[in-house]
Amino acid sequence: MKPTVIFQPSGRQGQVEVGLTLLEAARQLGVDVDSICGGRQTCGKCKVVLEIGEYAKFGVTSAESHASPMGVDEQQYFTRHTSRSVVGGRLACAARITDDLLVTVPPESQQRKQVIGKGANSRPIAIDPIFRQCFVEVTPHALGERDGDWERLQQALQREWQLADLEIVLPALRTLTAALKAGKQRVTVTIRLCQHAATSPPRTTVIAVRSGFHDALFGIAIDVGSTTIAAHLCDLETGETLATETGMNPQTSFGEDLMSRISYVMLNGAAGLTRLTRSVIETINQLVARAVSTAQISREDVVEVVLVGNTVMHHLLLGIDPTELGAAPFTLATHAAIIAEAVQVGLDVNPVAQVYFPALEAGHVGSDNLAVLISEEADSADLMTLFIDVGTNAEIVLGNKNGLWSCSSPTGPAFEGGQITHGQRAARGAIERVRIDPETREPRFKVIGREAWSDDSSGGEIGATGICGSGIIEVMAELFRAGLLRGDGRFAQIDHPRLKWLGPKAAYVLATSDQTSSGMEIVVTQDDVRNIQLAKAALHAGCKLLMRKLGVRTIDRIVLAGAFGSYIDPLYAMVLGLIPDCDLAQVQSVGNGAGDGARIMLLNKQRRAESALLARRVHYIETAIDPNFQEEFVGAMHLPHKTDPYPTLRALGALPAAVADVAANARALRRERRRQG
Amino acid sequence: MKPTVIFQPSGRQGQVEVGLTLLEAARQLGVDVDSICGGRQTCGKCKVVLEIGEYAKFGVTSAESHASPMGVDEQQYFTRHTSRSVVGGRLACAARITDDLLVTVPPESQQRKQVIGKGANSRPIAIDPIFRQCFVEVTPHALGERDGDWERLQQALQREWQLADLEIVLPALRTLTAALKAGKQRVTVTIRLCQHAATSPPRTTVIAVRSGFHDALFGIAIDVGSTTIAAHLCDLETGETLATETGMNPQTSFGEDLMSRISYVMLNGAAGLTRLTRSVIETINQLVARAVSTAQISREDVVEVVLVGNTVMHHLLLGIDPTELGAAPFTLATHAAIIAEAVQVGLDVNPVAQVYFPALEAGHVGSDNLAVLISEEADSADLMTLFIDVGTNAEIVLGNKNGLWSCSSPTGPAFEGGQITHGQRAARGAIERVRIDPETREPRFKVIGREAWSDDSSGGEIGATGICGSGIIEVMAELFRAGLLRGDGRFAQIDHPRLKWLGPKAAYVLATSDQTSSGMEIVVTQDDVRNIQLAKAALHAGCKLLMRKLGVRTIDRIVLAGAFGSYIDPLYAMVLGLIPDCDLAQVQSVGNGAGDGARIMLLNKQRRAESALLARRVHYIETAIDPNFQEEFVGAMHLPHKTDPYPTLRALGALPAAVADVAANARALRRERRRQG
Repeated sequence: MKPTVIFQPSGRQGQVEVGLTLLEAARQLGVDVDSICGGRQTCGKCKVVLEIGEYAKFGVTSAESHASPMGVDEQQYFTRHTSRSVVGGRLACAARITDDLLVTVPPESQQRKQVIGKGANSRPIAIDPIFRQCFVEVTPHALGERDGDWERLQQALQREWQLADLEIVLPALRTLTAALKAGKQRVTVTIRLCQHAATSPPRTTVIAVRSGFHDALFGIAIDVGSTTIAAHLCDLETGETLATETGMNPQTSFGEDLMSRISYVMLNGAAGLTRLTRSVIETINQLVARAVSTAQISREDVVEVVLVGNTVMHHLLLGIDPTELGAAPFTLATHAAIIAEAVQVGLDVNPVAQVYFPALEAGHVGSDNLAVLISEEADSADLMTLFIDVGTNAEIVLGNKNGLWSCSSPTGPAFEGGQITHGQRAARGAIERVRIDPETREPRFKVIGREAWSDDSSGGEIGATGICGSGIIEVMAELFRAGLLRGDGRFAQIDHPRLKWLGPKAAYVLATSDQTSSGMEIVVTQDDVRNIQLAKAALHAGCKLLMRKLGVRTIDRIVLAGAFGSYIDPLYAMVLGLIPDCDLAQVQSVGNGAGDGARIMLLNKQRRAESALLARRVHYIETAIDPNFQEEFVGAMHLPHKTDPYPTLRALGALPAAVADVAANARALRRERRRQG
Repeated sequence: MKPTVIFQPSGRQGQVEVGLTLLEAARQLGVDVDSICGGRQTCGKCKVVLEIGEYAKFGVTSAESHASPMGVDEQQYFTRHTSRSVVGGRLACAARITDDLLVTVPPESQQRKQVIGKGANSRPIAIDPIFRQCFVEVTPHALGERDGDWERLQQALQREWQLADLEIVLPALRTLTAALKAGKQRVTVTIRLCQHAATSPPRTTVIAVRSGFHDALFGIAIDVGSTTIAAHLCDLETGETLATETGMNPQTSFGEDLMSRISYVMLNGAAGLTRLTRSVIETINQLVARAVSTAQISREDVVEVVLVGNTVMHHLLLGIDPTELGAAPFTLATHAAIIAEAVQVGLDVNPVAQVYFPALEAGHVGSDNLAVLISEEADSADLMTLFIDVGTNAEIVLGNKNGLWSCSSPTGPAFEGGQITHGQRAARGAIERVRIDPETREPRFKVIGREAWSDDSSGGEIGATGICGSGIIEVMAELFRAGLLRGDGRFAQIDHPRLKWLGPKAAYVLATSDQTSSGMEIVVTQDDVRNIQLAKAALHAGCKLLMRKLGVRTIDRIVLAGAFGSYIDPLYAMVLGLIPDCDLAQVQSVGNGAGDGARIMLLNKQRRAESALLARRVHYIETAIDPNFQEEFVGAMHLPHKTDPYPTLRALGALPAAVADVAANARALRRERRRQG
C-alpha cells in the first residue's frame, strides 16, 4: 500500500512511492513548490511543514516519523538559518516519504507568491516572475569532446531543470568559463523570458551565470512624473519592496510644465533633447544608487526595470523627440510597449537588464495612466468607475470590465497654482486649507509646514507665501458656500471689508499683509476665479463627454490619481463641480497608483502582457474635435454645474441655498427633453 | 483575348489583363523582379528590356508599341541615368501592357543576384540577402487618431509591401518622426531578418528609416588571422566587393603566436584580455574607415558584419578569455554561432548593425576553417577532398558531401620560420625560392622584394636576411633531390664545400656572407631539418589519421588554405611529404578562402544557416588521444614517407633515385599485410 500525501493549501493529494522526496512528490502531483538549487539542500526555497492534521484520528502523534530523519546537510541548513525554522519544518528536497503525510507549503515556498500592494486598496500583487534561478552542476569537459562550456551548461539545464531551446547573452557568455572554474562546475544561472521587442515571442535566455549558489535578484519600478520621480526597488522573488526613493525631476529647471520642455527641445534641437534625456536618466541613476545602498544589495543584481510616465516623459526617457506632442494632431512615435536594454537607455544597473516601457494609450494618455488602470484592475472592475489624473492636462478614463473610454482635457496649469495671481506649487508656506465663516465671511487658513491654523497664530508667525492647488479649490468652494461667489463665478455685489472692487471686478483678501512673508496681501481675483472655472469646466466636460459616450447617468466610483488627487478634499472638488456627483465614500485618492501599477508590471508577466492589450482596448476621444465637448464645457462653467443636480451634495447640505436654482434648471431641462423626445 | 507576356531568363509566361504594369504582371506570374520604391519610378531596380524575339515571326517589328508609351517620370528617370539605358529599356513599374510581350529581366534587376567569387574557383556567389529596402508613403496623422508614427509605418508596409508582424529597433524609432517630416511622409525603410541569438527564429525588424529615397546598403566580411586581418566591404544588394583592406594584427606585439597571446592573458588577467581585444577591434575599425573612404560611402550605411577567425581570435574578438584553449582539454566557451550587436563588440559601423560570428568546429578548428569549407562547398563536394590550413596548428578536414572529418595537428611554428636557425617571417629580404643543381650541388635562390635570382646578381645586391616558410620547404626538398639529405633526414656523408660538419651534425651554407645583409652566412642545420621533419610528420600524420578513419586510400583533391598555401610550391610540399600523394593539377591554393566564405555568409542567408549545420556535421578527432596518431607520426618522419609510394612524384621523376627504396618498402609492406590478412 503506497502512502498518501496531502499538500496544503492546494489540497492536492495522491499515493506515491515510499522513498520519494517531498519535492518529487509535489512535482508528480502538480503542487507548486519553489526550488533554486534543484534538490541540493542549499537554497531553502522548498521549506515545507509536516503536519499531523487529520492523521491524529488515526493515532498518528508525530508526523516526523512518517518521513526520513534529517541528514547532515539538512541539519546544517537549519542550523545556519535558525531564524526561519518552525516546528515540523523540513526541506522538501531532503525529506523522503515513509508513510502518510499532511504537508503545508507556506506562501514563501510557493513559486507563485503574493505580496500586499501599498495602494489605497492594498490589493495583493501576484508574483508571476519573468525570471528564474537554477543552480546546476555542469559535467566537466573531457579531452576529445567538442562541446563548449555553453553547450555543456545547456545539457545540465536540460538534465536537471528540463529547460530546452535556450539562448545566452554575450556578457553572460563572457563570464561563463570563469564562473564554472570558480564554482568547481557548480553555478547559479539566471534565466529570463527575453523579448527582442514587446511583440516578439519570448525566448528563454540565460542572462547571468555566477559561481556557486547565489539567489539575489532585484528589479526597479519607476514612476517618472513631470515634477517628481519615484523609484521602488523590489525583490523579484518575494515581491517585497526593499526601498523607495523619490527625487525632483531635474527637467523642471528647463521648464516647469510639459509644454515648456517641448519648447526647450524645439529651441535647442538635438542637443536640447539630449540634455533633457540625460538629466532625467542621471537622476534616476542617483535614485537607483540610493535604493541599492538602502537595501544593501549590489547594483549588478538589478536585472529588470519598468518605467512609466506621461507621453512626453516617455519620449524624453527614450531619447525620442517629443515636439510633435506639443501641437495638434499630437503624434506619438509609437503607442506600443517598448523593450530596451539598460545600456541603450543609459541606466546604471546590470548591463543586460531589460527596461520595459509599458504601452501608451494616446497622444496625451501615457503609461502612468495605464499603470493606474492596471493597479486598480480597471479591466475587471464591476463598478462604473471614473479615473482622473489631473496635471496640466487631465487624463480621464471611464468604464468597467465591459469597456473603457478615455480622453484628455486641457485643464491648464491653474489647478497647480499656475495663472493664479498668488498661485504657487505645493511647498512650505503655501496656503493649502481654507475655511470661510458663512456668517462673518471671514477666512481662516493653514499653510504647508505649520500645524496651527491662521486664527490660532499671530500674524507674524504664519508667513504665507501664496496659494497652492488644494488651497485654491478650497477658497473658491468656501467663497461659493459663503455666498461671496455666485453660481456663474462672479463675486456677489456684497459690501464686505474683505472684498475689494476695482471697477466691475472684485478680489477677496485671503491673507492680510501681516500674515504673509512678503508683507503683501494674498488675494483671490475675479480672473483667478475665471481661470479655475475654465480648468474645472474642461475637466468636467471631459467627464461628461465620456459619460455621454457610454450612456452613463451616474458614476459608481471615482479614482483620483497623482499628487493632485492626494491633496484635494473630494467634498470641495465636488462643490466646485470638478468631478461629477458620486457617493463621497466611493471617491478615492490613489496617490501612488502609477507606482503600484509599475510594480505589478515588474513582478507579474501575465499582467504585463495584459497591460499591452488593455492600452489598446481603451477607446480614445479627441476632445479637440468632438462637437459635444464645447457644449459640455459651457454648462460646466457654472458652479458646481449649470444643470447637474448633485444629489449627494444636496443631501449633505453642502451647497449654498442659491444652488436650488441649479436643480430647478435641471428639472426644467429634463422636462423639456422629455417633451421633445 | 488577353495579351501573353513571357519573361526571360526564367521563361515564365501567362496571359494578363491589358493595362497591368510589367511589375504587376511579374508578381502575378511569380517572376523575380527587384523594386525598392514600390512602383514610384524612382529606384530603377525594376529595369527590364522589351524584346521582339519570337514575335518577329508574327510581323511584330517593335516591342515598344506593345506597351504604354513612356510618361514624364520614366523619361526623367532615364534622362538622369543615361549611362544605364539600353535599347528597349523600360521601368517595369511604369510600362503598362497593351499587347503580347517578350521581356528580359537583366541580372541586376533580379532580387536574387549572383556575383563572381574571387577565389581559386571563381564560383558564383548567390545573393540571398538578410536585408531589404522599401520605399513607402505613410498616411499623415489625423487629429483624433490614436496610432503613432510607427503604427502608421507598419500599416504602410503592410499595404504597399505585404509585410506584417514587424519590429523596430530603438535607434530607428528615435529617428522615425524626423524622417517622416523631412521626407514629407515618404521614407526608405531598411528591414532585416533579425535574430536575438543564432538559434532564435528570425524577426522582421526595421533597423533604419531615412527620409525620401535611399538605396545604399553595405556589409563587411572580415577574416581575422593571427598575423593579418583582411576586411572586404560589399554592396549587400549587388554583392560587389567595393574595397578590400588588409592590415597586421596588432596582437603580434603582445605575442607572435597564439600560445604567447594566451600566456599574455594568463599573466595580465582581465586587463590583458581587454588590451588584446581592444587592439584588434581598433585595427578593424581602421580597416573599416579605410574601406568606406575607398568606396566613398558612409560608415552609417554599413549594417552587417561577418567575422571569421581561429578559435583564439574568435574568443579575443568577443572579449572571452581564451585561456582554456591553451591547454588540454582545450575548452571553448561555445562552439555555436553568435550574433552580437556592433556596439557590444565596439565596432564603429552603424550602431544597430549585427555582427555574425559563424560557428566553430572544435577547440582548435575555428570559423576561418568553416568559411573555407563554405567557400569550397565542401558540403556538396563529389571529390574526396583534403582541406589543409597550416599555421602554428594545422587544421585538416577530409571528406565530401557524404561526410567530413577534421582534426588539428600541432605542426608548431617551423613552417612559418620559427625554431629555424635563420628562419623569419615572409618579408623583404627573406629567401623564398631555392634551387640546388643536382650535379654541382650549388644553390641559387630568390629573396622577397627582388626579381633576379642570386646567380644573376652580384653578392652585394642581394642582402638576404633569412629564410621564410616557402624557402625552407624548397631548400629541404632540393637538398633531398640533390642527394644531400637522406630519406631519414640526415645529411649525406658527402664531402662538399657547402656542407660544414660540426661533430656528427652538418649544416648546408645556403647564402654566403657576401649575399646577406648581416655579412654572416645563412645556413640550414641538421636541427632545422629535424624541426621541419617534426612539423611535416605532424601534418602528414593528421592527414593519414583522417584517411584511415574514412577508409580512404587516395585523395582526389587537396585544398591549401591560408597564406602558407599561397606561397609554397605544391610539388615541393609533396616531395617533402607534407601532403599525401595527389594529382598535382588537383592541388589548389585558396589563399582567401576564409575571406570568400565570410563574404558568402554575409551575402547569402541560406548559406549562413547551412554553415551552422555544417560546423556540427564535421566530425572531429582529437589527435592528442588517438593511439593511431603516434604510429602515423613515426612513418611520416621519413622524406617523403616511410611507406607511401607517391606514384605522382615517381611519374614526374621528382624523387631522387634513392627513394626507390621507399616504393620497395611499401611493396614489401603490402605483401606482408596480404600474407597476414
